[in-house]
Amino acid sequence: MRYYQTMNTIGRILRFTSFGESHGVAVGGVLDGLPAGLRVDKERIRHALARRAGRLLPAGFPAEEYENGLAMSQRACKEPDEVEFLSGLWDGVSLGTPIAFIIRNRDSRPEDYAALQDVFRPGHADLTYQAKYGVRDPRGGGRASARETAARVVAGTIAAQWLEMQGVKISARVLEAGGETEPERIRTLIREVQTAGDSIGGIVGCTVSGLPAGTGEPLFDKLQARIACAVMSINACKGFDYGSGFEGRSRRGSELNPQSGGALGGISDGNNFTFRCVFKPTPSISLPQEALCTDGSRTSIRIHGRHDVCVALRAPAVVEAMTALAVADLMMLQRAGSPN
Amino acid sequence: MRYYQTMNTIGRILRFTSFGESHGVAVGGVLDGLPAGLRVDKERIRHALARRAGRLLPAGFPAEEYENGLAMSQRACKEPDEVEFLSGLWDGVSLGTPIAFIIRNRDSRPEDYAALQDVFRPGHADLTYQAKYGVRDPRGGGRASARETAARVVAGTIAAQWLEMQGVKISARVLEAGGETEPERIRTLIREVQTAGDSIGGIVGCTVSGLPAGTGEPLFDKLQARIACAVMSINACKGFDYGSGFEGRSRRGSELNPQSGGALGGISDGNNFTFRCVFKPTPSISLPQEALCTDGSRTSIRIHGRHDVCVALRAPAVVEAMTALAVADLMMLQRAGSPN
Amino acid sequence: MRYYQTMNTIGRILRFTSFGESHGVAVGGVLDGLPAGLRVDKERIRHALARRAGRLLPAGFPAEEYENGLAMSQRACKEPDEVEFLSGLWDGVSLGTPIAFIIRNRDSRPEDYAALQDVFRPGHADLTYQAKYGVRDPRGGGRASARETAARVVAGTIAAQWLEMQGVKISARVLEAGGETEPERIRTLIREVQTAGDSIGGIVGCTVSGLPAGTGEPLFDKLQARIACAVMSINACKGFDYGSGFEGRSRRGSELNPQSGGALGGISDGNNFTFRCVFKPTPSISLPQEALCTDGSRTSIRIHGRHDVCVALRAPAVVEAMTALAVADLMMLQRAGSPN
Amino acid sequence: MRYYQTMNTIGRILRFTSFGESHGVAVGGVLDGLPAGLRVDKERIRHALARRAGRLLPAGFPAEEYENGLAMSQRACKEPDEVEFLSGLWDGVSLGTPIAFIIRNRDSRPEDYAALQDVFRPGHADLTYQAKYGVRDPRGGGRASARETAARVVAGTIAAQWLEMQGVKISARVLEAGGETEPERIRTLIREVQTAGDSIGGIVGCTVSGLPAGTGEPLFDKLQARIACAVMSINACKGFDYGSGFEGRSRRGSELNPQSGGALGGISDGNNFTFRCVFKPTPSISLPQEALCTDGSRTSIRIHGRHDVCVALRAPAVVEAMTALAVADLMMLQRAGSPN
Repeated sequence: MRYYQTMNTIGRILRFTSFGESHGVAVGGVLDGLPAGLRVDKERIRHALARRAGRLLPAGFPAEEYENGLAMSQRACKEPDEVEFLSGLWDGVSLGTPIAFIIRNRDSRPEDYAALQDVFRPGHADLTYQAKYGVRDPRGGGRASARETAARVVAGTIAAQWLEMQGVKISARVLEAGGETEPERIRTLIREVQTAGDSIGGIVGCTVSGLPAGTGEPLFDKLQARIACAVMSINACKGFDYGSGFEGRSRRGSELNPQSGGALGGISDGNNFTFRCVFKPTPSISLPQEALCTDGSRTSIRIHGRHDVCVALRAPAVVEAMTALAVADLMMLQRAGSPN
Repeated sequence: MRYYQTMNTIGRILRFTSFGESHGVAVGGVLDGLPAGLRVDKERIRHALARRAGRLLPAGFPAEEYENGLAMSQRACKEPDEVEFLSGLWDGVSLGTPIAFIIRNRDSRPEDYAALQDVFRPGHADLTYQAKYGVRDPRGGGRASARETAARVVAGTIAAQWLEMQGVKISARVLEAGGETEPERIRTLIREVQTAGDSIGGIVGCTVSGLPAGTGEPLFDKLQARIACAVMSINACKGFDYGSGFEGRSRRGSELNPQSGGALGGISDGNNFTFRCVFKPTPSISLPQEALCTDGSRTSIRIHGRHDVCVALRAPAVVEAMTALAVADLMMLQRAGSPN
Repeated sequence: MRYYQTMNTIGRILRFTSFGESHGVAVGGVLDGLPAGLRVDKERIRHALARRAGRLLPAGFPAEEYENGLAMSQRACKEPDEVEFLSGLWDGVSLGTPIAFIIRNRDSRPEDYAALQDVFRPGHADLTYQAKYGVRDPRGGGRASARETAARVVAGTIAAQWLEMQGVKISARVLEAGGETEPERIRTLIREVQTAGDSIGGIVGCTVSGLPAGTGEPLFDKLQARIACAVMSINACKGFDYGSGFEGRSRRGSELNPQSGGALGGISDGNNFTFRCVFKPTPSISLPQEALCTDGSRTSIRIHGRHDVCVALRAPAVVEAMTALAVADLMMLQRAGSPN
Repeated sequence: MRYYQTMNTIGRILRFTSFGESHGVAVGGVLDGLPAGLRVDKERIRHALARRAGRLLPAGFPAEEYENGLAMSQRACKEPDEVEFLSGLWDGVSLGTPIAFIIRNRDSRPEDYAALQDVFRPGHADLTYQAKYGVRDPRGGGRASARETAARVVAGTIAAQWLEMQGVKISARVLEAGGETEPERIRTLIREVQTAGDSIGGIVGCTVSGLPAGTGEPLFDKLQARIACAVMSINACKGFDYGSGFEGRSRRGSELNPQSGGALGGISDGNNFTFRCVFKPTPSISLPQEALCTDGSRTSIRIHGRHDVCVALRAPAVVEAMTALAVADLMMLQRAGSPN
């Protein structure tokens, strides 16, 4: 008997359980606690999955870019992810019972991974999974793969739809990539970095609008704590701040007091809640790198296959999904705490 | 019947439940899930409480400063907080059963608050508590008061002691206050700001060393996600990043891959885990401010009483405590997941 | 927006989430927290599902009975339930990640239910679901249907397999049906009752052997409390007792002290843990009954279709499954609580 | 480092955390999730504690019995338990924040226990605690002591008060002791058994009335499952049934369908929910008994000190308390699941 994952569920009232390996039959999930009567918008889910997969450009980028086949993501798959719903819906409408769904996996070029069987890719979770489990899936990232975020996007998009019926809207977009803020400059930079076989980081900004004053719990489940936890659980995310955030380090109370970051004491004040999160450059680069081998020696490797130059460009769909799950759960907690 | 707080507990295996109002009989907590056989170091708890209370200077500040009675915190109380343990210890050693403790409250100048009964202090939780609960404690912050963090410090210091027996050490310190990084310059700035009746923000840095490789759960309970959640639940904290953090926004994969932020895929790699968190300037300032009244009108107020110029100076003790609770819980989860 | 189910998950460390409606695409579940390295015995699962479905006779009943096509259950389906595993297994061996599985539904004669659309079947959950949700599935029981127990049997059989590797064996059997204890007399009684269009109750006994001394938590998670909770969550179960149970009402301490019911203070003592549970007669009978209509009037109804004369005969597979989930979770909790 | 208790909390929305050892400073608890605005009736709590302590007779027993100083319980203390509230109340009214309370312990004749240091008392948890923890408190039962139920009674009585404001009433009483049902005969039997140095079991019945139709969750948190779990966690409780219960074993569907046990499909139907639970004879008897010694040998012991002849007589207060905690939690879950 060996180690097992202790918890693949997030949420208290609206609970999302994720399952599936990147190279297994399917990835999927169970969304439990969604009220009955919601007509699930499957087109919207397809659209969010396309954004996540790099099959749609981030907002602000010229459409012809994608048409030219360049796309921001070199990893964009030709075929869209297809979601099959197994329960919880009748004629497309939620029953109030658990909604289970799957996205079947397709061939994913295991030969690209074969060469990496005896080496820990720098910046990847190969080393830490080996340390934790004493074993790792040589065919790819398994549960650590970014593929798992597809299930998050399905569940989060349903939660977002519920939120919109309550008047709450969540919108994330790329603020910076490689230090640049203008789409045209980002596009140029990405071509350069791609040619160099390297990768760049970026920042995603997100705004939650229409949040009722009173959302968020006062102590350990503050609005910002729960959103931070959800967003920091996304692969490659390295930081989170909201409102005045890290910029507030050199500001005075008299300046900041009149401003609103959207929450005071962990509870929304009815204004927009705005936050930023930062994604590191993807560690999968084609430049040669020094790497640790499983036998303790060191070697130089090059990682082949399709890789993103900048994962931040695909991240907004996942940031929106995780934020929606966290915020919807807190709104339901607020209702649970209002007994009359 | 009116609204209630839905959750005053944090942790899965090591669970801390906090209770108590700032102007009630006592604040306190119950720490459940601590192994038997730990001799609780009460002197260490006293020391951590003194740091939290502003009765000890942050590391790097000259000792005479405190001796001179100036102290960083104008709010420093004369008398130390006294902890009474009610259960879970026998002859000072943990029994493996719930450890309950209280710190009784002392007189806290309610007359300072009387004038503020009909006004929402800017930047405080007055407004959001009113929105959430439809009622708020006019005598002070109640559960929203920073006083509640005393209970966190007691529980977190016990967790830190357990961690040290496992070889894990957590150390937080002030990195910046008001944009300054040198103690001498910070001291000068604080005097100026205090004279001006204003306040400043700051950054606290924290290092977790000795963490066994393999700590942290792969999906929603990543090391960084759980620490972020715990730290972002501290009053006035506005942001969190780790490893390359927000600085990584303009770096390349080839630069960052060889570095270690202490975790990959949400799991510690055995290196130091380093993070930063930012605290906003305390909203309690003596400068006149425009404020919203409970009847919807606006007024100009001045907040009297003892106030911190920079809460970040007192925050390291609380940051260490919350980090210890999060990390100890994850280490126990890792053991729970290793069935043999 | 309407009511939703708040919790379809059981367990703390080994967690089972159930999903699926009786007349939807599939029923299924996610078993999270199972250690890696277990070769899942699919033949064993098939066998347990056949017992649950009434396709195998309870132990002690002559085999030719089933061969004759009489079977104990008139509801026995011709085709077996087929389980599809979606994740958590590689080459049939558990990966330590969530195991998701489904059993697709087949045609189930919705015409049998059409006539009952405007009536609350006596003894069924029709009335209470209507009261709780304000709506109910006219095609059948939905989540309240006994079909949902198929998912419990799959998960519980995997848990039972893990338990056997720890030396723990769980075995349930029919003790009584309609007050009779001998198979031959039960068989005769069932034929009579079936002819009369009525139904009978029964008692299932279960023994957990090989349980390590020390299993079970002292306070709210006592061994007997957790098993009782799991077993009492089975449809039609009306009571539970263990050890001396209800018979101990008229015994003396001096008599009972030397005996062992398998647990003291909620913790196993290493002896067999034996319990009983009672199942009421299935409320689906073909005799005419008075029933409440949705418009408040009363009518006389007859329930057609295939019905069990005695659900207790099929219950042992479900009792074993729920007991296995509860006991495996407690054994893992015991390990979580033993930090070295 | 040694074993620890993994969970001293019960409930999802209304959560009760228990702490304290029988021979430590105090026993107590934290009740989290109670709505604001409830005036806590301290006299009612005192009365419930007196019933639990055997200082008040069970309903149906002649008052002079107690006046005569005989009392049902030989263990009845002279002085009542005094509850100190530490948080969550202001001027006696709940604030919606965690209610912490303690009952300080008094001297409890540790000399009675000294002689039993090297022996496992038959029928007690001595042996199983030793097996689980590798250590046990030689001064008494520690957390396993019935003293811990005092904290349950305080929390449960507050929950019961909240329930009554919702129109729900819980009432438990002794149905049988030693097989007798008439108070006069029970009294005679108790004197005989006491003289003989033995003990007897008994049955407590409980009725929950006024429960709104729709209370209870359909799957694993059925009304009967959650109440069974709560009640079966009481020391010495060996069984639970509701409605037709174990008597239904030999009844027919046509007989039982028109009856209501108060719940169908795990959800209350608005009728009274009635259940029974059975308590074994207390294992503390003064008759000589064979016992296992810590060194593996066997000896004959007599247990001195004050002992109950029949714990069932004191149990109704605890049964009511645990039922109230379970039912109030389910009612709040039902509200959490009704988002509008």
